Amino acid sequence: MTSGATTREPLTLFDTTLRDGAQTMGVDFSLADKTRIAALLDDLGIDYIEGGYPGANPLDTDFFAKRPPLRQARFTAFGMTKRAGRSAENDPGIAGLLSADAQAITFVAKSWDYQVHVALGCTLEENLDGITQSIAAAVKAGREALLDCEHFFDGYKANPAYALECAKTAYAAGARWVVLCDTNGGTLPHEIEEIVRAVSEHVPGSALGIHAHNDTEMAVANSLAAVRGGARQIQGTLNGLGERCGNANLVSLIPTLLLKEPYAHKFKLNVAIETLPLLTKISHTLDELLNRSPNRHAPYVGASAFATKAGIHASALMKEPKTYEHVPPESVGNKRRLLVSDQAGKSNILAELQRIGVSVDAKDPRVTRLLEEVKQKEALGYAYEGADASFELLARRVLGEVPDYFDIERFHVNVERRYDARGAFVIASEAVVKLKIGGEILISAAEGEGPVNALDLALRKDLGKYQGFISDLQLVDYRVRVFQGGTDAVTRVLIEFSEASGETWTTVGVSSNIIEASFQALLDAITYKLMKAGAK
Amino acid sequence: MTSGATTREPLTLFDTTLRDGAQTMGVDFSLADKTRIAALLDDLGIDYIEGGYPGANPLDTDFFAKRPPLRQARFTAFGMTKRAGRSAENDPGIAGLLSADAQAITFVAKSWDYQVHVALGCTLEENLDGITQSIAAAVKAGREALLDCEHFFDGYKANPAYALECAKTAYAAGARWVVLCDTNGGTLPHEIEEIVRAVSEHVPGSALGIHAHNDTEMAVANSLAAVRGGARQIQGTLNGLGERCGNANLVSLIPTLLLKEPYAHKFKLNVAIETLPLLTKISHTLDELLNRSPNRHAPYVGASAFATKAGIHASALMKEPKTYEHVPPESVGNKRRLLVSDQAGKSNILAELQRIGVSVDAKDPRVTRLLEEVKQKEALGYAYEGADASFELLARRVLGEVPDYFDIERFHVNVERRYDARGAFVIASEAVVKLKIGGEILISAAEGEGPVNALDLALRKDLGKYQGFISDLQLVDYRVRVFQGGTDAVTRVLIEFSEASGETWTTVGVSSNIIEASFQALLDAITYKLMKAGAK
Repeated sequence: MTSGATTREPLTLFDTTLRDGAQTMGVDFSLADKTRIAALLDDLGIDYIEGGYPGANPLDTDFFAKRPPLRQARFTAFGMTKRAGRSAENDPGIAGLLSADAQAITFVAKSWDYQVHVALGCTLEENLDGITQSIAAAVKAGREALLDCEHFFDGYKANPAYALECAKTAYAAGARWVVLCDTNGGTLPHEIEEIVRAVSEHVPGSALGIHAHNDTEMAVANSLAAVRGGARQIQGTLNGLGERCGNANLVSLIPTLLLKEPYAHKFKLNVAIETLPLLTKISHTLDELLNRSPNRHAPYVGASAFATKAGIHASALMKEPKTYEHVPPESVGNKRRLLVSDQAGKSNILAELQRIGVSVDAKDPRVTRLLEEVKQKEALGYAYEGADASFELLARRVLGEVPDYFDIERFHVNVERRYDARGAFVIASEAVVKLKIGGEILISAAEGEGPVNALDLALRKDLGKYQGFISDLQLVDYRVRVFQGGTDAVTRVLIEFSEASGETWTTVGVSSNIIEASFQALLDAITYKLMKAGAK
Repeated sequence: MTSGATTREPLTLFDTTLRDGAQTMGVDFSLADKTRIAALLDDLGIDYIEGGYPGANPLDTDFFAKRPPLRQARFTAFGMTKRAGRSAENDPGIAGLLSADAQAITFVAKSWDYQVHVALGCTLEENLDGITQSIAAAVKAGREALLDCEHFFDGYKANPAYALECAKTAYAAGARWVVLCDTNGGTLPHEIEEIVRAVSEHVPGSALGIHAHNDTEMAVANSLAAVRGGARQIQGTLNGLGERCGNANLVSLIPTLLLKEPYAHKFKLNVAIETLPLLTKISHTLDELLNRSPNRHAPYVGASAFATKAGIHASALMKEPKTYEHVPPESVGNKRRLLVSDQAGKSNILAELQRIGVSVDAKDPRVTRLLEEVKQKEALGYAYEGADASFELLARRVLGEVPDYFDIERFHVNVERRYDARGAFVIASEAVVKLKIGGEILISAAEGEGPVNALDLALRKDLGKYQGFISDLQLVDYRVRVFQGGTDAVTRVLIEFSEASGETWTTVGVSSNIIEASFQALLDAITYKLMKAGAK
């Protein structure tokens, strides 16, 4: 294969996390989630972001109405081709798609003759006509059109002529991309490569896409097999989200395409190699949004992906890491982990201190003390990876840079559910916080939507001379994770705050008591804010 | 490819869960675990079970001393080839391996010239001599010998002649199997197939094995690629356990080999198709032993592997499941699931009702009412796909099958943090629940680890005549998710309970107040249990 930037062929990435990924069991995106994920994908350099199915449910309709601002990705709507027995102009589904604020429209159509009969109950010709008219309507409306050929590979095996006819029809009608979907996920790589190659004799490979599912643990391999067969668009999702066993995992595919041959030399992606170190963070951010623990064993981005357990490999690895790592961990924003080495811990801490702008000598005994403290806290369940403000606070405390602004004397929180005098059902939450600033005792009470809200309001109600420093603090996200469910559970709370500058940062609290864990995170946030503002 | 049982070629499966799988981060097998896992593998019909490295650590030495009883698998010891500068007879490592009670011995040797120099510090010839002597010693001692060629593919790319020489040397010395290892896991399928094919011109494919790692999410695909290149042994682990991103997942490979072409017709495995339905249970049993939640999205065996959320697919799926499932779920011991979700249609609801044993006519107006209620609840943030018990309760309520066991008059929960009389810091949680059963008022109070624990204890302290029905109820998991972080947050709580029978089920509660959401889930659990027990 040829090399050199000028001769590299474009290879396009199409993300369907927000559409097919929304089918994942246990996944329930909010509008804010969708907006945030679209921004992550856009930052990464994904070419197309499929936002959902406007008109099919209120959330997706709303998401298109409030179209997220994207710097580079093409925002794409998904929907069905027109129904048989009406024209595209008279199909409300098509009208809805054309009125959605999107640059591209993906239509899905069956390409397996059997399913056209059984599931649609129309003729094969009507199905082809639906493809032609839908694509033409989108093109006429100035949109880029894609066709997802549903069940393409099963269809091709049953009736190659008809499956091919669907693909050719879409291309002839003006579809920019004809996407071959392995809807049931059961096709194997050698079949995918062979069939895509056969199709590419009728529809140019530069217009062919692959949409693979992971039902045989082959979605990533199948995507590459399709590229080898000639396809030039890969559809997938972040972290392989998706119905059943998931879709092709873009987080695994992108580094392989950028770092490994023949792909790296043969293709040009919109994801830049300089952007690739964002990948680990993007993958983990999605997990955080979904309140899932990231998969430690995930290729490229998992915490264990470059970890070596004590043993024969560890010392050799330290001599010559390159021969024990298939790619450099930092190329994807990950880190090498040697689980026996305290040295590694210390260098991590030093790197973190440098990142937050604290310069301290490596031999300073306070660095060792901080390392010990971090280890102890992490053993209790604290996680500083996602709680930058709490880490900085801990570090600066050990370095003696954080004043004692106030002392908490006590708090209590009360939640009550009862019937009121008129027989209506009420839930009330109330909190009281008593604290001491200098010699002064301040006691505040507040009611809230729930116990944590009440506590937050009471704590921030009167901070005496510090009140002015915290007035722009806003709680923007509250996340809870319970470890080892049951009676010996430990609860970790992460709270994200924003301030007037737009900056956001996160604090952490851990306790067997969810209220106490939340209170710790709230306290850290206030203390961090006072420290940053230079309060004395 | 030819078909028919008589002409099928043998394809051998080699499991290394107990050796390479033991390198998994967070995995720490006990002797009992190892014995149990060996039995599972033997039941399944795996050809070789690699038990560990006798002599390298007390656990493995012990495991070989107490060799597990196996019906069909060959028990295999793992160790290094002899060191340079001594004969095989004088190498204590070799002596230890030969004295271990095993039918086969896998030696590992480097096959990358660079690593022979850097990691071993011996000559290339000494390394080859180590292979010859070690294999010969095992054969002489009446053992079947295997050679794991470490870093084979990286080595082959760097110096094909030397890598090949290692393989040929082992075969010439009498190794039954020469296993090509992708130790760093970075090789891609097309390279694996090509290199294995090249090697098979020098060592017969019927003596070649593949040992793949999942660092690019290709371990399963790489194993099949090696088989296509001529290899006839696949090494892997249950659930893909293993260092970093894991080894090739036998749980994904076995059904593909048995159920999909060309493999099913071309090869004869020792795993029988009649045994395959054990697979889901075996996979989940391993997770239980390791105290992990099974991966819901695991190919073939995951809880979601045959689950459908989408309404449009659900109705077609019920008409003709075969065209929506790449293999029948029962072939691997799994089940079809139609999920209730905000995309739910009536057909999902009907299928769910059928699954939980409620027979109701599709035209019964109560089905429509249930659908409406599910949709409303889901709009509030409820999610029934993970809360089977709450769904069943809701359904049976709409059908009029659930008695009003009791009424909650009120509850309150109090959490307090203060200093006690001796100046020590205390956190206390207390709950009071008042309820009415028939005409009787029952009021109970309890202290707990946190507010939810206190509430749970108070609620279950005295249920009057129903107390006996709930005595075996145990809270095993508590999960919280907060949507739309900030002040207008909605909290969803999922609680999993187990009962004496070992059965577990999950309930859901939603509120802007985390205590109220938890209380709803607790209430549902008790009501569900009473209903199931037939309490009146």
